[in-house]
Amino acid sequence: MNRKPALAVVGATGAVGAVMLQILSQHADVWGEIRLIASPRSAGRKLAVRGEETEVVALSEETLTGIDVALFLVPAEVSAQWAPIAAAKGAVVVDNSAAFRLDPDVPLVVPEINPHSLRVRPRGIVASPGCTTLAMIVTVGALHAEFCVDELVVSAYQAVSGAGQGGVEALRTQLALVAGTELGTSPGDVRRAVGDGVGPFPAPMALNVVPWSGALAADGWSSEELAIRDETRKILSLPELRVSATCVRVPVVTSHSVSVHARFEREVSVERAHEILATSPGVVLFDDPAAGEFPTPADVVGTDPTWVGRVRRAMDDSRVLELFVCGDNLRKGAALNTAQLAEAIAREF
Amino acid sequence: MNRKPALAVVGATGAVGAVMLQILSQHADVWGEIRLIASPRSAGRKLAVRGEETEVVALSEETLTGIDVALFLVPAEVSAQWAPIAAAKGAVVVDNSAAFRLDPDVPLVVPEINPHSLRVRPRGIVASPGCTTLAMIVTVGALHAEFCVDELVVSAYQAVSGAGQGGVEALRTQLALVAGTELGTSPGDVRRAVGDGVGPFPAPMALNVVPWSGALAADGWSSEELAIRDETRKILSLPELRVSATCVRVPVVTSHSVSVHARFEREVSVERAHEILATSPGVVLFDDPAAGEFPTPADVVGTDPTWVGRVRRAMDDSRVLELFVCGDNLRKGAALNTAQLAEAIAREF
Ligand SMILES: NC(=O)c1ccc[n+]([C@@H]2O[C@H](COP(=O)([O-])OP(=O)(O)OC[C@H]3O[C@@H](n4cnc5c(N)ncnc54)[C@H](OP(=O)(O)O)[C@@H]3O)[C@@H](O)[C@H]2O)c1
Ligand SMILES: NC(=O)c1ccc[n+]([C@@H]2O[C@H](COP(=O)([O-])OP(=O)(O)OC[C@H]3O[C@@H](n4cnc5c(N)ncnc54)[C@H](OP(=O)(O)O)[C@@H]3O)[C@@H](O)[C@H]2O)c1
Repeated sequence: MNRKPALAVVGATGAVGAVMLQILSQHADVWGEIRLIASPRSAGRKLAVRGEETEVVALSEETLTGIDVALFLVPAEVSAQWAPIAAAKGAVVVDNSAAFRLDPDVPLVVPEINPHSLRVRPRGIVASPGCTTLAMIVTVGALHAEFCVDELVVSAYQAVSGAGQGGVEALRTQLALVAGTELGTSPGDVRRAVGDGVGPFPAPMALNVVPWSGALAADGWSSEELAIRDETRKILSLPELRVSATCVRVPVVTSHSVSVHARFEREVSVERAHEILATSPGVVLFDDPAAGEFPTPADVVGTDPTWVGRVRRAMDDSRVLELFVCGDNLRKGAALNTAQLAEAIAREF
Repeated sequence: MNRKPALAVVGATGAVGAVMLQILSQHADVWGEIRLIASPRSAGRKLAVRGEETEVVALSEETLTGIDVALFLVPAEVSAQWAPIAAAKGAVVVDNSAAFRLDPDVPLVVPEINPHSLRVRPRGIVASPGCTTLAMIVTVGALHAEFCVDELVVSAYQAVSGAGQGGVEALRTQLALVAGTELGTSPGDVRRAVGDGVGPFPAPMALNVVPWSGALAADGWSSEELAIRDETRKILSLPELRVSATCVRVPVVTSHSVSVHARFEREVSVERAHEILATSPGVVLFDDPAAGEFPTPADVVGTDPTWVGRVRRAMDDSRVLELFVCGDNLRKGAALNTAQLAEAIAREF
């Protein structure tokens, strides 16, 4: 590194942005200027980064000028429009949205799994995977390196902050309405109490789980479910991998959990899986039910690694492992993975 | 039916008992005396059934005398001790606990699936399955009749009332502590707020999901996970069926949900699956994501049927269906199934 590159954080005021500012303040400081950018609505707000109050500026061609690395932590349609503009102005873009994840000219990178992919970026854009894929991919990738994954069946328990700050506010508002009541025992009582306050969700989140996230894609699948399949295939370079995902939103603020049923080409054992997971970077093995040890969002939130527990071999299939993984969707699931990619790019300067 | 049999409700004061008293008050009245029984702690309490205040009596040989049909809605160790006594005194026992479900001399019955099994009961005891098995078995059984099930991978989203009244109280207490706060965003903050008030659960339930229910069984599996496998095999008469289950407790008061990945021997189609599910007794097909239609506990609680939605065929396996099912664990998952069995037995008198 010869000089400290200038960094733009586009979407600094959002749920992912807030965690990014924490991370930038805590990690080794590899950046020159850090420019905070959001929509015109937020221009003039002050946010703390690296211990300094910094004014937020509105996203524009001008505010992207002179930037070396631009982090996009904004809705996909904003990334789709503005990331190519930032790249054309000379920045390397690390995009956290779904806009470019499946673009064959954009690498989709998890540093623990496919760091080499970062180097080839024809469009000047690198994508960070979705938060549910990231919650499971580090553990699945580590096991794949030894056993060769053949099929994944995953059911997700997604936190409301996966839908951004608006999701968190909706859950908190709803919890205040149901706490101290007898709600949750007759049909529609929670729905009536919550009224129209469902926020970004299609049904109440307090005292409920909702088997839907994303938009309607083909044949009854949701866009998030297909994204888990397509992103996993791309990251692992297994274009034919069978992946069936079900996305369910749960009343947790932050940290996604995933129940993973993984079939491999080779025979597996819990013992060997434990050894692999215990020594994989970015993974914490927390698997002793007799001692009350299994990952839960309440313990995992705010931490960097992916936590894994409940490792079991299927009773009647020696090629199948069951896992329960938990990862902070705003950290490894978003801001941390994006920051890891940006820091690797900073080393090129 | 020549005479109205005398009924005992053992465990009338519990979570399942409360719903049983509602059902007995609403269904066609096929019973003579209804005797309410619980532990000595509850003796003398008055509960309403069929519109009458009825005094609870303590469980004893005496209070089981003169009973034709005895419903056991008590912990498994109480059933294990007392159900054979009730049977020896001439009652037909319908047991709702796990004590006899896998006993080869006790039929395990779901009226929509294997009603014929009810007739052969060498021990005078009939068992009702566990609440998670019941949440999925009516839909899986209906599809099995057409497509022949070959493998099930299920992840459960279990409500706290599955752990009884104590589970409901624990969640309500915890929600009062977290509502109106910023909790759920830093490691252990929910755990600290909740303190020792985790009730019957091994971790906080508010703003959390907990991948554990039941006791530790073999090789890292929980007893509830193995029970889902063993009960499903017994009900469907498929002793070799591959079933991998993961049980996760969620902060919902009542209604279990299950994400089901079902592989069949025959080719499946969503269209035919819809036809089957739309016409199966005890099932509501609620599957139009574009119109916001998929089952959630908040809509299902307090209703009798199993609700099913999110029906999808695997993209790369024409023998696999994905489903999301939701059923009230205190109704079909416990009291309703038990009442259905008892009413069928009442017709023998
Ligand atoms: N939340 C997660 O767990 C997660 C995980 C992985 C990826 N992601 C992705 O990360 C992105 C951000 O998610 P989030 O959860 O942080 O959302 P959020 O809380 O809703 O924040 C959105 C951010 O985008 C900014 N923004 C919106 N429209 C803009 C515009 N026209 N021009 C400039 N800035 C604009 C907002 O600025 P204002 O405050 O000015 O409106 C805000 O900073 C999304 O693409 C999301 O899918 C999220
Ligand atoms: N909750 C569910 O979703 C569900 C579903 C399917 C099956 N089950 C099974 O149904 C049974 C009851 O569950 P629950 O959820 O209703 O539990 P619960 O709310 O804890 O109620 C337990 C009931 O058992 C009675 N009891 C306890 N010890 C007794 C004793 N020594 N003698 C007589 N009665 C005694 C209690 O009476 P007191 O009030 O006097 O203590 C109370 O009526 C359990 O075996 C459970 O596994 C539950």
